[in-house]
Amino acid sequence: NSFVKSQDYANYFCTYSYLYHQKEMLSDHVRMNAYYRSVFDNQECFRDKVVMDVGAGSGILSVWAAKAGARKVYAIEATSISKHARTLVEHNGLSEIVTVMQTKVEDIESLPEPVDVIISEWMGYFLLRESMLDSVIVARDRFLRPGGALYPSHCTVYLAPCRTPLAMQRANELSNAMNNWDRFSSDIQAQYDVDLSCLRTPYYTEETEYSLQTSQWAEVYPSQLAGVGAPMLELDLNTCTVADIEVIKANVTMQISMPAGVDGDDEDTAMGEAAEAPAAEQPLQGIVGWFDVEFRGSEKNPAQQLHPPVVLSTAPDASGATHWGQQLFPVAPGAVTVRDGDVLHAEVKLERREENHRLLRLYFDMCKQPKGTRPKDVDWNAQVALRWNID
Amino acid sequence: NSFVKSQDYANYFCTYSYLYHQKEMLSDHVRMNAYYRSVFDNQECFRDKVVMDVGAGSGILSVWAAKAGARKVYAIEATSISKHARTLVEHNGLSEIVTVMQTKVEDIESLPEPVDVIISEWMGYFLLRESMLDSVIVARDRFLRPGGALYPSHCTVYLAPCRTPLAMQRANELSNAMNNWDRFSSDIQAQYDVDLSCLRTPYYTEETEYSLQTSQWAEVYPSQLAGVGAPMLELDLNTCTVADIEVIKANVTMQISMPAGVDGDDEDTAMGEAAEAPAAEQPLQGIVGWFDVEFRGSEKNPAQQLHPPVVLSTAPDASGATHWGQQLFPVAPGAVTVRDGDVLHAEVKLERREENHRLLRLYFDMCKQPKGTRPKDVDWNAQVALRWNID
Ligand SMILES: Nc1ncnc2c1ncn2[C@@H]1O[C@H](CSCC[C@H](N)C(=O)O)[C@@H](O)[C@H]1O
Ligand SMILES: Nc1ncnc2c1ncn2[C@@H]1O[C@H](CSCC[C@H](N)C(=O)O)[C@@H](O)[C@H]1O
Repeated sequence: NSFVKSQDYANYFCTYSYLYHQKEMLSDHVRMNAYYRSVFDNQECFRDKVVMDVGAGSGILSVWAAKAGARKVYAIEATSISKHARTLVEHNGLSEIVTVMQTKVEDIESLPEPVDVIISEWMGYFLLRESMLDSVIVARDRFLRPGGALYPSHCTVYLAPCRTPLAMQRANELSNAMNNWDRFSSDIQAQYDVDLSCLRTPYYTEETEYSLQTSQWAEVYPSQLAGVGAPMLELDLNTCTVADIEVIKANVTMQISMPAGVDGDDEDTAMGEAAEAPAAEQPLQGIVGWFDVEFRGSEKNPAQQLHPPVVLSTAPDASGATHWGQQLFPVAPGAVTVRDGDVLHAEVKLERREENHRLLRLYFDMCKQPKGTRPKDVDWNAQVALRWNID
Repeated sequence: NSFVKSQDYANYFCTYSYLYHQKEMLSDHVRMNAYYRSVFDNQECFRDKVVMDVGAGSGILSVWAAKAGARKVYAIEATSISKHARTLVEHNGLSEIVTVMQTKVEDIESLPEPVDVIISEWMGYFLLRESMLDSVIVARDRFLRPGGALYPSHCTVYLAPCRTPLAMQRANELSNAMNNWDRFSSDIQAQYDVDLSCLRTPYYTEETEYSLQTSQWAEVYPSQLAGVGAPMLELDLNTCTVADIEVIKANVTMQISMPAGVDGDDEDTAMGEAAEAPAAEQPLQGIVGWFDVEFRGSEKNPAQQLHPPVVLSTAPDASGATHWGQQLFPVAPGAVTVRDGDVLHAEVKLERREENHRLLRLYFDMCKQPKGTRPKDVDWNAQVALRWNID
């Protein structure tokens, strides 16, 4: 409806109309190199082709597609940044090939011809935030000829247990906020004779949601992982539908791996404990999420086989994060403790938020299977229910 | 239209639904004391009266009005914070008197009775940002009985020349941003063979708008003023209309007062210059804006005469700023230089922004009349045109 639509322009598209924001994406070399290779190490799939760039932004991918030999490129961009894309196209002598159209791709009724290739950089935080994949699916279903190829073509979202100081920081912030509330509340009582005590609980709820039930952008280091990433979603863009991504449910199993002496912030390990002592229970500090996308093309029009294949990974990486970073889901200190070798079984649900379909909410209902026990020993009723907004 | 309306809910009302935000306002003691006195040092004007609180938020003003003896209080609040206002009212034993209604005041067709008093805290940054005064005017015209009183009743907006490091900081940020662009642009050329030079000027325009043509919240100290505040707007809320505040035009005259040795950041003054040497030209670093509101009631129902009268001032104050702070309009270094005794003549226009009627834009077209010259010597064609968005 029109409420949702106009909210969307104000809150979502607005940022993309700034060169400042496009520049940030253009400065992400991991992102840039993956797309660059997917075009220029794979020129056969672009030569003489009709290409659509869904969400062209500055126009960079359209310019590349044209330089790689595309016969025609439709550069579709919803915001006024399209005028800069047009400047870029003209200035680089490509206006004969690239047509920049300022419109939402959904609002294009028809094009002069079907397209052979769709290229798009639609990924948001935790892959699906922004829900822009919907627009790529619309473009695919409406404009891509049968057998045509999508770049990227496949994606995977991962979750892993991790250890970072964030959860503790957030818990501290929460308790500071409540101390502050208490001082504030007694000030108001003393100075203005109004009793605010009835609002303490609502305030606590609000602050908890903010501090512990909201994920955040973070650069997680590989050394902070407490287990390998478990896939919670795999998508083949050639076939996936909006229904597939509106609500995602998955069972995820994660093994805790915290070998003694490896992690940075366990102070005990420096004390030289006997190796055979059972590892201490430690708080599960967080869950970290990230995604990979691959550029394989379609079955009928596969990308050139490259070694290494073109994968854009946003996994924790010692050499630095992409602009997507990772998504960090803090777990309140004390909510879950774990030991090396424990297994976490989680029923995961990822859905869109009612108030804004571009924002997400992750449900993570988990049980712990302590090391050495079997799945059938797990008390499946003793679930810990964790939830976060992805803003 | 519905575009504007829903944008408004998403961008404007949203923040007010958080206790966190209401708490910030409740913690502003200058604000609180002014409203508290306007009610409790003036109880005669509330006793047995029907009161409307336009934008009740946490409900604090409604609770006060009820405690001061109002017969009936309509607490009107657009956002879901109203449920907390209701809790507060109940918890303080005032539900018989205070009725909390979750609605925009504009959407109330009728009330059981006309109201005797409207109390409202509607002031935004630089008084008019948020454009909430429109809603108070609607409430007045629709629900206030003839002769009824408004609290507050009168407002004044001031501008003054000032000296702060902000303009220099902003100019530095701008030049850093452009250096950064140049590195970025040659990186892109080198690594991806795309020439971005055609976007340099648009980027400069975008960054200039952001850094030098946008005002900001600031706590300005009285010692940073380079002249007294000149009123650019005076409003009597008993009579003003939306037309009066949609576009405001004024001629403002400001005398530069920078007596040698008084300002903090003029390094030369410590050197003990001869007092008779003419003061050096110095960059005009900024214009600062603030407002006062007064609680006088109406002609037929004036507030009790108090000494001192109740004035909520957001002027620069050595004892600290209100949550409104001041609005600081940076002037690019070099754009205007001034000396003690110069007079600035400005044609000022304040209007709402097209893309969001709650945000403002200030135009400040000025001429300088150097000390010792007369207005008729001023070259009125040599105007300096300064403009800022108030975000
Ligand atoms: N439905 C839609 N139709 C057209 N453009 C859209 C869209 N949804 C998002 N966009 C645009 O898609 C862009 C995604 S950012 C990617 C920009 C560019 N392709 C690059 O790789 O650098 C934004 O500029 C956004 O405004
Ligand atoms: N048109 C309108 N109708 C009803 N409430 C409105 C409104 N426009 C703004 N508001 C509300 O007005 C409040 C202003 S803030 C002031 C809150 C409270 N009266 C106090 O003094 O502490 C916000 O809570 C906002 O949601």
